[in-house]
Amino acid sequence: MTFPEQFSFSFLDKLRATYGSPFYLYDQSRLEEAAQATLAFPNAFGLTVRYAVKANPNRAILQLFHKAGIHFDASSVFEVERILQAGIPASSISLSSQEFTAEDVRILETGITINACSLNQIQLLGEFRPGSEIGVRFNPGKGSGGNNKTNTGGPESSFGIWHEYADAVKALAGRYGLKIVKLHSHIGSGSDPELWKEISNSNLDLVHQFADVHTVDLGGGFKVGRVEGEITTDLQAIGAPMADTFRTFAEQTSRKLHLEIEPGTWLVANAGFLVSTVQDLVDTGARGYTFIKLDTGMTDILRPSLYGAQHAMMVYSSAPTRLSKKDYVVVGHCCESGDLLTPAPGQPDVLSVRSFPDASIGDIFVIAGAGAYCSALCGMNYNSFPAVPEIMLEAAGTRVIRKRQTLDQVLENEYF
Amino acid sequence: MTFPEQFSFSFLDKLRATYGSPFYLYDQSRLEEAAQATLAFPNAFGLTVRYAVKANPNRAILQLFHKAGIHFDASSVFEVERILQAGIPASSISLSSQEFTAEDVRILETGITINACSLNQIQLLGEFRPGSEIGVRFNPGKGSGGNNKTNTGGPESSFGIWHEYADAVKALAGRYGLKIVKLHSHIGSGSDPELWKEISNSNLDLVHQFADVHTVDLGGGFKVGRVEGEITTDLQAIGAPMADTFRTFAEQTSRKLHLEIEPGTWLVANAGFLVSTVQDLVDTGARGYTFIKLDTGMTDILRPSLYGAQHAMMVYSSAPTRLSKKDYVVVGHCCESGDLLTPAPGQPDVLSVRSFPDASIGDIFVIAGAGAYCSALCGMNYNSFPAVPEIMLEAAGTRVIRKRQTLDQVLENEYF
Repeated sequence: MTFPEQFSFSFLDKLRATYGSPFYLYDQSRLEEAAQATLAFPNAFGLTVRYAVKANPNRAILQLFHKAGIHFDASSVFEVERILQAGIPASSISLSSQEFTAEDVRILETGITINACSLNQIQLLGEFRPGSEIGVRFNPGKGSGGNNKTNTGGPESSFGIWHEYADAVKALAGRYGLKIVKLHSHIGSGSDPELWKEISNSNLDLVHQFADVHTVDLGGGFKVGRVEGEITTDLQAIGAPMADTFRTFAEQTSRKLHLEIEPGTWLVANAGFLVSTVQDLVDTGARGYTFIKLDTGMTDILRPSLYGAQHAMMVYSSAPTRLSKKDYVVVGHCCESGDLLTPAPGQPDVLSVRSFPDASIGDIFVIAGAGAYCSALCGMNYNSFPAVPEIMLEAAGTRVIRKRQTLDQVLENEYF
Repeated sequence: MTFPEQFSFSFLDKLRATYGSPFYLYDQSRLEEAAQATLAFPNAFGLTVRYAVKANPNRAILQLFHKAGIHFDASSVFEVERILQAGIPASSISLSSQEFTAEDVRILETGITINACSLNQIQLLGEFRPGSEIGVRFNPGKGSGGNNKTNTGGPESSFGIWHEYADAVKALAGRYGLKIVKLHSHIGSGSDPELWKEISNSNLDLVHQFADVHTVDLGGGFKVGRVEGEITTDLQAIGAPMADTFRTFAEQTSRKLHLEIEPGTWLVANAGFLVSTVQDLVDTGARGYTFIKLDTGMTDILRPSLYGAQHAMMVYSSAPTRLSKKDYVVVGHCCESGDLLTPAPGQPDVLSVRSFPDASIGDIFVIAGAGAYCSALCGMNYNSFPAVPEIMLEAAGTRVIRKRQTLDQVLENEYF
């Protein structure tokens, strides 16, 4: 079920009275269930689940996953610092970063592990700490997107070292005595078991060339359905054939490889809700549209404007159940024509309508599927709207895990 | 010329050494020139230029425009507070907001003027301050976009009161004794003088129905060319026929209407530069691409990822002039396939290449046209990258107008 059973106008209105509107609400039980499901990912010779922190880096979420036994994938040196500040040991953290400079290399002093994502990164690591153990991220040459389209694998992707350069990797590692113990690739393979198996095999082909590799990290990209008709990746279905490929590889080589996966969206997307208020209703005449205007928008949830992403939505009304329904376009609070929460799928600038019970100003409006890449990636502070709070829904009640930003905080670096 | 003549490797490298990389750099002389050009907008009976603050709300920019005699258009109550905090008097500020609640109405106590953008807003204003003077924003029923496309005017737009509801506006204003003294519309009409004239006329048609109106605000949307082939709106060309319509209206009615315009992009876009560093170079083989990886990206400039927007770019190298050129794809520093700075026009997820002199790690990379909707609307803090500083380039040298954010500031609302 998309919306938790305990959600109702009176339940949410009490939270709104306490925390103000809007706010993100995360369901702890869903986070814990998702954590357990990823930890049960099929594997032949051991598994490490690394949470892709960029999906939602809130401290409380990091700590919850740490407690569950999940490790962490950081995408910048700042993210490493953030995870450490949450009280998580460096031994649980691996860094795979697009940006990595001669200064950034000092982050290794914290004790984290690292995947070099370019030949230049290998060189920086070699100069800084010759003889050490590293992982290497490869671009396996295949992606899941179309021609010339941005992608996390294939010739259109800048992520990782192009697979044809394995010899250059070996030469560079050799020069600095670096031991390559992990191979990493991430192509965002979605929910197709066949594609995952193929990727798994092309990774194992590379492993043949690196004698010290004991771990293979296949990244993430496990898709999650946020609305009806979208598929949520069945981890058991994609994991089982991959485990077979690891077993076959072990039979052939006597090398028992450890598996790592890096789910982000899969762990948090459907545990998160953006709770807002219907603050206006307008229409453009008999042949036009009726618009629900929220007190949130692209400042807090950018995915519809960025990708034409679809999110389930629900109106909670104080009035007795309204039987009559109506088609609405839902828009955000920014002075920006692109601040549209109900775009056509994949078309951020094309309006589509949703049917809701008759809405009134003051009704509570909940956007589901808002746990991943919402508070983490948004048009924060656009139109000078301060960032909104994050609230954890626990068994015993609710708890603030990020306070509402003030305007003074928005401005603090302009006043000094 | 897109890039100021004084830009060179040594000039920019000195700034980089002082402020770190990356940073926004604003050219004060360009801001002042743009201000004077808007203040010379053709008009029949007086002009107020209101800067659309959401384009770039930095205090120093607000103060510069205030000094030049420009007024301000705020798009939220937070933006009103921000402008006031910059030391600008309330009499220079007008609010037109998509979000406006029963609590927000108290912002009127500061002394600002307001354009009601919905029937509900008129009611809130009437209840709070019956008998007062207000402006009303209408949706004139026409826009500049296609069918079902997001737009700032026409049936697909939620902005302003649908033009067919003029009678409802009059009735509601009458109930509270509100005096409607300004009509506002904004449809983002671009650079076509004919379209502007048409909009001007349809606004004047509405003015006939409102006897107390003394000011017409035609909004903004004056397009700016950021790369070759894109057109910059000629303000004189679009303004002159509009002034004629005001004169004709005066001859017919004896009403001499004051004109307001609300440029945002036009005032700031080409005065701003994002100065960054080439921090890696990777390629995907003989039939693939060569990528320049910057230490900036969608965290600081989202327009390419959001709209497929085009920005002029330049590599400044420490090495002697490199004669050989090469095709590059330019990407940002985020672990996100959409963090692409050279998309195909209007297609955020399609790669295109640009020709630059051979680039090296450490070269300075400047993105032009970054004054509007860059620091104001970006994927701030994604991948936990702190917001970057803003620097004003003045005649006497440079000055920090926003400090670099620290990671502690990014996290401050999680730790309490």
